[in-house]
Amino acid sequence: MSAPTLRDVARHAGVSVRTVSNVVNNYAVVAATTRARVQASIDLLGYRPNLLARHLKQGRSRIIGLVVPELDVPYFAELARLIIARARARGYTVLIDQTDGDARRERELITEHAYALSFDGVIVSPLALTADDLRERRSGLPLLLLGEKLFGGGADHVAIDNVGAAREATAHLLAAGRRRIAAIGVQPGAVTGTAALRVQGYRLALAEAGVEPDESLLVPAARYHRANGAAAMAGLLDRPDPPDAVFCFNDLLALGALRVALTRGLRVPQDLAVVGFDDIEDGRYSTPTLTTVAPDKELLARHAVEQLLGRIEDGDTGDPLELRTPYRLIVRESAPRGSRRVGHP
Amino acid sequence: MSAPTLRDVARHAGVSVRTVSNVVNNYAVVAATTRARVQASIDLLGYRPNLLARHLKQGRSRIIGLVVPELDVPYFAELARLIIARARARGYTVLIDQTDGDARRERELITEHAYALSFDGVIVSPLALTADDLRERRSGLPLLLLGEKLFGGGADHVAIDNVGAAREATAHLLAAGRRRIAAIGVQPGAVTGTAALRVQGYRLALAEAGVEPDESLLVPAARYHRANGAAAMAGLLDRPDPPDAVFCFNDLLALGALRVALTRGLRVPQDLAVVGFDDIEDGRYSTPTLTTVAPDKELLARHAVEQLLGRIEDGDTGDPLELRTPYRLIVRESAPRGSRRVGHP
Repeated sequence: MSAPTLRDVARHAGVSVRTVSNVVNNYAVVAATTRARVQASIDLLGYRPNLLARHLKQGRSRIIGLVVPELDVPYFAELARLIIARARARGYTVLIDQTDGDARRERELITEHAYALSFDGVIVSPLALTADDLRERRSGLPLLLLGEKLFGGGADHVAIDNVGAAREATAHLLAAGRRRIAAIGVQPGAVTGTAALRVQGYRLALAEAGVEPDESLLVPAARYHRANGAAAMAGLLDRPDPPDAVFCFNDLLALGALRVALTRGLRVPQDLAVVGFDDIEDGRYSTPTLTTVAPDKELLARHAVEQLLGRIEDGDTGDPLELRTPYRLIVRESAPRGSRRVGHP
Repeated sequence: MSAPTLRDVARHAGVSVRTVSNVVNNYAVVAATTRARVQASIDLLGYRPNLLARHLKQGRSRIIGLVVPELDVPYFAELARLIIARARARGYTVLIDQTDGDARRERELITEHAYALSFDGVIVSPLALTADDLRERRSGLPLLLLGEKLFGGGADHVAIDNVGAAREATAHLLAAGRRRIAAIGVQPGAVTGTAALRVQGYRLALAEAGVEPDESLLVPAARYHRANGAAAMAGLLDRPDPPDAVFCFNDLLALGALRVALTRGLRVPQDLAVVGFDDIEDGRYSTPTLTTVAPDKELLARHAVEQLLGRIEDGDTGDPLELRTPYRLIVRESAPRGSRRVGHP
């Protein structure tokens, strides 16, 4: 037998669900006699108002906003699932908005919307927000930032070590004998953010191996979708001196690059090794499967939710924290270990 | 120059963003002199409060709830993006909740949460909701249902013709000379819902081609994820009489099945043709690319949003509508047209 619901109480008391909800929330609109009747049914059936109802009375909504740029980028969808599960286990509902990286929409959510919806806190994976925007957020709104933007932005921040991860991915290709390693996903002119950090790690690995970087192998991508990876790869393969490996700044770029390479008749990994970033499920089922950097998404979600709830529930007002979560390189078919020996680097 | 924001007004008036928000929303907490000062800044800068703020005053939140089972199933992520875009164009924000098909969570959202968050309306892709649940929703809450559940459930409903689509997919394989066509994604015992409708279409096509159905080729899948497709395919290939084609009830199942077939050394489509359902982006970049049923997601999103907004804005209280959106079979590498002739069916 399942626990009695609002609906059961409504039926028993012979009133609408709305009326029961009004009683539970202690709204003044219910007549005293009706209120008494509903309360009697609640007591008799042993109905426990759900968390939301109870916490609204306590001035808490038990609702967290989650703001991501693109839900159809699997990395965000997978992360959202883990954050939702974690928050749910703590009695919170997560509502998601997708901003497409639009600054105005990102800002709206931590100002107007956070008010209107009485969010207890917000987790944001920002693309365009500035430290200035953060200062203007709803006063006292607990906020947690995910990802590679806005370090030191005056809010708690959870991310992996992107420089270290990119360096390890590139070193893996170098150790396999690759020397002409392209990087797809560069954002020209960017000095902060995902691309800048990953380029930094890529350069570091090349320098450590004594390999002279070829700037023409750094290929921009406006977005990190399959189509961008495919276009970038096509450009690289049209050159007289194509690369023997490619490090893509996310798995979607890598899957697009992989498709183009196979279509052109290249063997992966023999002719071209491919490494991605994110460890989305797609890369575990592609042919060949994808070597990739796997952030510990489970831990990332846990850190994000626990840190935010610490601010919400314990009223923790200490200095903003920078939390680092671990990652690991997962070696699969698209770039195995030491797959080719090269005599002359 | 961009339009002035709440923040610009706050700076100009020398008050906090919260105070400006309070003035805009006409809350009583602001002192008259402050209110006058803020109003002067609003007028001077030509600030137009955003839609949300304006509509809160009108008793509308301009917020729509979108309830889907699983955001990391790309079909839902892609559909969510289109619904968000469409609603946004009409001045609405969409907030998403993921229910994992849990009946209680689906119910919560159209009852308690719909109140607490003042949703103007809700779009639900239900897995577990019953017609009974719908009757108990927040009174007057405009509701729109997506997908293959709850036909005639007392709310507007948008879906494609699943029987017709499954029939066409199966007929395509038959026309290519396949005779032992497996179906992956069956839900044993289900008489309504996605699987039941697609099995119906599959049987119809076989009957029309005079092919005797082999019940052992109807393979269940508890969920519609890559791992389920992989497990089902492995089981089929372990048999002494494996199929020469497989119709998977979504693309994720098909991508899992594809991976296992290739790993076992089968050639796709020569040895095994594969057809999916949903036309998610993954199947356009897999090797081989995936033949699939493509619902017109753009139109589906448009119908859903426009029909819901008709209920919200025009107060349309007419009978619930059943809206059919079109689909088409997209033929790609995994199951080309007429790829094999078979003399003896």
